[in-house]
Amino acid sequence: MSLKEKVIEIREARWFSNLTTAIIIFYASVLGVKTIGEIEGDYSTFLYLMDYFVTIYFLIEIIIKMSAEKNLKDFFKSGWNIFDFVIVFITLIPLDNSSMAAVARLMRIFRVLRLLTSRPQLKNIIDMLIGAIPAIVDIVILMFIIFYVYAILGNYLFESAPSGLWRDLLIAMLTLFRILTFEDWTDVMYEGMEIHPWSWVYFVSFVIIAAFVFFNLFVAVIIGEMEKINNKDIEDEIHNDSKKLDMILVEMTSLKNEIKELKQKEKING
Amino acid sequence: MSLKEKVIEIREARWFSNLTTAIIIFYASVLGVKTIGEIEGDYSTFLYLMDYFVTIYFLIEIIIKMSAEKNLKDFFKSGWNIFDFVIVFITLIPLDNSSMAAVARLMRIFRVLRLLTSRPQLKNIIDMLIGAIPAIVDIVILMFIIFYVYAILGNYLFESAPSGLWRDLLIAMLTLFRILTFEDWTDVMYEGMEIHPWSWVYFVSFVIIAAFVFFNLFVAVIIGEMEKINNKDIEDEIHNDSKKLDMILVEMTSLKNEIKELKQKEKING
Amino acid sequence: MSLKEKVIEIREARWFSNLTTAIIIFYASVLGVKTIGEIEGDYSTFLYLMDYFVTIYFLIEIIIKMSAEKNLKDFFKSGWNIFDFVIVFITLIPLDNSSMAAVARLMRIFRVLRLLTSRPQLKNIIDMLIGAIPAIVDIVILMFIIFYVYAILGNYLFESAPSGLWRDLLIAMLTLFRILTFEDWTDVMYEGMEIHPWSWVYFVSFVIIAAFVFFNLFVAVIIGEMEKINNKDIEDEIHNDSKKLDMILVEMTSLKNEIKELKQKEKING
Amino acid sequence: MSLKEKVIEIREARWFSNLTTAIIIFYASVLGVKTIGEIEGDYSTFLYLMDYFVTIYFLIEIIIKMSAEKNLKDFFKSGWNIFDFVIVFITLIPLDNSSMAAVARLMRIFRVLRLLTSRPQLKNIIDMLIGAIPAIVDIVILMFIIFYVYAILGNYLFESAPSGLWRDLLIAMLTLFRILTFEDWTDVMYEGMEIHPWSWVYFVSFVIIAAFVFFNLFVAVIIGEMEKINNKDIEDEIHNDSKKLDMILVEMTSLKNEIKELKQKEKING
Repeated sequence: MSLKEKVIEIREARWFSNLTTAIIIFYASVLGVKTIGEIEGDYSTFLYLMDYFVTIYFLIEIIIKMSAEKNLKDFFKSGWNIFDFVIVFITLIPLDNSSMAAVARLMRIFRVLRLLTSRPQLKNIIDMLIGAIPAIVDIVILMFIIFYVYAILGNYLFESAPSGLWRDLLIAMLTLFRILTFEDWTDVMYEGMEIHPWSWVYFVSFVIIAAFVFFNLFVAVIIGEMEKINNKDIEDEIHNDSKKLDMILVEMTSLKNEIKELKQKEKING
Repeated sequence: MSLKEKVIEIREARWFSNLTTAIIIFYASVLGVKTIGEIEGDYSTFLYLMDYFVTIYFLIEIIIKMSAEKNLKDFFKSGWNIFDFVIVFITLIPLDNSSMAAVARLMRIFRVLRLLTSRPQLKNIIDMLIGAIPAIVDIVILMFIIFYVYAILGNYLFESAPSGLWRDLLIAMLTLFRILTFEDWTDVMYEGMEIHPWSWVYFVSFVIIAAFVFFNLFVAVIIGEMEKINNKDIEDEIHNDSKKLDMILVEMTSLKNEIKELKQKEKING
Repeated sequence: MSLKEKVIEIREARWFSNLTTAIIIFYASVLGVKTIGEIEGDYSTFLYLMDYFVTIYFLIEIIIKMSAEKNLKDFFKSGWNIFDFVIVFITLIPLDNSSMAAVARLMRIFRVLRLLTSRPQLKNIIDMLIGAIPAIVDIVILMFIIFYVYAILGNYLFESAPSGLWRDLLIAMLTLFRILTFEDWTDVMYEGMEIHPWSWVYFVSFVIIAAFVFFNLFVAVIIGEMEKINNKDIEDEIHNDSKKLDMILVEMTSLKNEIKELKQKEKING
Repeated sequence: MSLKEKVIEIREARWFSNLTTAIIIFYASVLGVKTIGEIEGDYSTFLYLMDYFVTIYFLIEIIIKMSAEKNLKDFFKSGWNIFDFVIVFITLIPLDNSSMAAVARLMRIFRVLRLLTSRPQLKNIIDMLIGAIPAIVDIVILMFIIFYVYAILGNYLFESAPSGLWRDLLIAMLTLFRILTFEDWTDVMYEGMEIHPWSWVYFVSFVIIAAFVFFNLFVAVIIGEMEKINNKDIEDEIHNDSKKLDMILVEMTSLKNEIKELKQKEKING
């Protein structure tokens, strides 16, 4: 067995992906325990060593995965491989001076995100969600137009509100997003009604259009995508049945022709 | 190529609709940036010129679209054309005196709404939603009756509530709409229970009937409409299969008759 | 045309049900306007006369409907007729003395409920909802058990809470209902966590079990019922196709037998 | 009839399961009434006796169920039997000394949970939910990763927040769970925005990813599981139709062969 075959065997091995998952989970747990804060002492040294170890393990792992490909280009064809590569590459940059400590801490969190790539089922769900984007994109654009128009209108109507919830377009869109989640939206409305008594029309119409209609459209699309996957088998079967029916019809015609020939002969014979 | 043909070509051209979209997006961004407020100076002059430019562009665009039709009547057959026409027409009205400045500002927002007509997919979604109205109308009527009856009852039971949330029918319906979104509904209930200790029956029944049952019915109808569109292909296929089966049955009978004739002849011959 | 035929004709007439609807809507509007309160004067006299008129109209209407039936028994076979009858009958009871004024006002609201029976589509939706009850009943029972057990447990754990939200079983169930709607549920939880630090397990588990799992099951059942109605046509078609296939199979066998007979004869002849 | 047959007959009898249900409901009501608190007196003695009675009844019931099985092993093959056994066994432990009184009270609540096993339909719903777990498990894992990463990030960004909502990983996850239910999530966000003005990106992204996308995915899966059960009949029918079509195709070929043979003979004869 050549070295390449061995590398491919390792890459495909179950224990290899399980080991990666286990290391990330352990690393994530260490990060979690750290937040409790009471257990200090030489904890930071341990975390420091842990960082080193995980960085090196990730590096070895990605080198194995890269060298298992026939061509390095193939490795970068998968979006998930690029995702892994970027995380490993970024966390390789040395950031030892204190000013970069904050960035270094953030990197640790990025490392945990590699959990997403260590279990194929998780990748499938995310791939499905990405696949649903084309179906959602127009609803999102429509939603954005509604948000934008309502935000300009809200900024125009309620700019003077003491809460400052409408003071510029960005804040107004954040306020509308809050209304979309129904979070204390009546407080915003009652404040608005003090400025313009009829402004409940603005709020109620937004709730109905954005939260009731479009949000449910959004839910409906996600459910529709899930169903498409669930119903694929039965649809394929119906497609096949359709083809079988066409075949039967063709057979039928050929049968009819045979019998006609038979009758013709009979006539000649008779 | 006649002038008419050229006009039709322009109307159908991709660059033409993209140009319109780009101008509206730029105009919308300008309106948005304006709300930040710090960037002033000769900004208002710029916006003033921008308004002029957009008005003239919209006018030219709608004239092109109108003259591309065989008959001016055909233009007004599409609801979307009427929508565009009304927006362009309204923003044409000169409103230079200061008292009308507020209205002029509102018009700018209406212009942004033209984004809806510049991307066909957005029109399709809105057309779908309008198409779902007949399926929803009875649920909305039923919901309105429930709201109306509960509002009269609420006004009757809690008119004296210090919050004034039930002081007349309109306010009571607004309060019920708030309860429908679960927004601080228990505050309203606890206040009501101080007046009538058993009034939790009123609130809980409203939440169950309006929010749980009817709201979900509403969601179910929207999901149902989406599914109808998704399942159209497969239903058409089943319809076609059904027709094919009928054809096979007809063929079957004709085949049977042929064989019967054959047998008859055989008898005569034999 | 006999009197009975004329009565049946009236009952079936469109103008008759439209008139009833119009009168109820007008009456409901009068009740609504009354809540605004500023328009007084001889308003109460008007309302008084209105009550009389509506009572008499309802009486005439129900007599027409009753006498149009072959048998009075048939009238009471429909649940909706009983619903109408009860409303008309109750509002007939004279309640002129002041102590009963409150009840009289409530009766006015019941009269508005007759709107539900004046439009057949509304009756259909409610019939559909009633038809969905058998599918929901076990989920409701399960939900009730969960509520009951959590309420006893909550009363046991948090009876001493200063807010009094757990002071007896009924109040505890109301509090749980509030948590089900996510209404300020964390306030309740934070209070509970002061008594028992680990009580977030109680609240989070209730939210997950009751709100996430069971509430969605409830939604799923309603959507399922809607779909059953939507998919009825296509399912019927598939049933028919299945029957057609059986017929084709039978035909096939008979065809085969005919050909066998033909071959037999041929043998004899040959 | 042997003793065993009699025992089996009792176990299968409707009145037996109804009696069990009735006793648990009565016992649950007694526990509920107790929380009202005003009705005291010799109530505790009554409850004490009630506890004894229910414990003995449960013991007899489970002995009947156990002895009705051919083999004691079979009894423990059903998860529901183990559930019953554990409840009965635990409540048998004597806990008379005062320090254990609290535990004894909790046991009473566990007894009420036996309602779940006394109605088969309830068991079916729970079995269905348990059956849906494999379909949900990856979404839950994904959700947990999102929670974990956001919690570490939130603890890192907002640890200094005066509300203490991010002080360690567990509290941060509880805060994120609260945001998932939209409960006063903007209060948390506004506090966060005072520390880092751009932290609305953190909150809005979490709401969109966790609450909008993943929560709806979760709902979609439950609805999908319900639909799978609803659509089973129609899918089975389509499967059968497919098989029938295959049979027709086979028949068709054999028919064709028969006719070919017939033609061959005719040739010889002719």
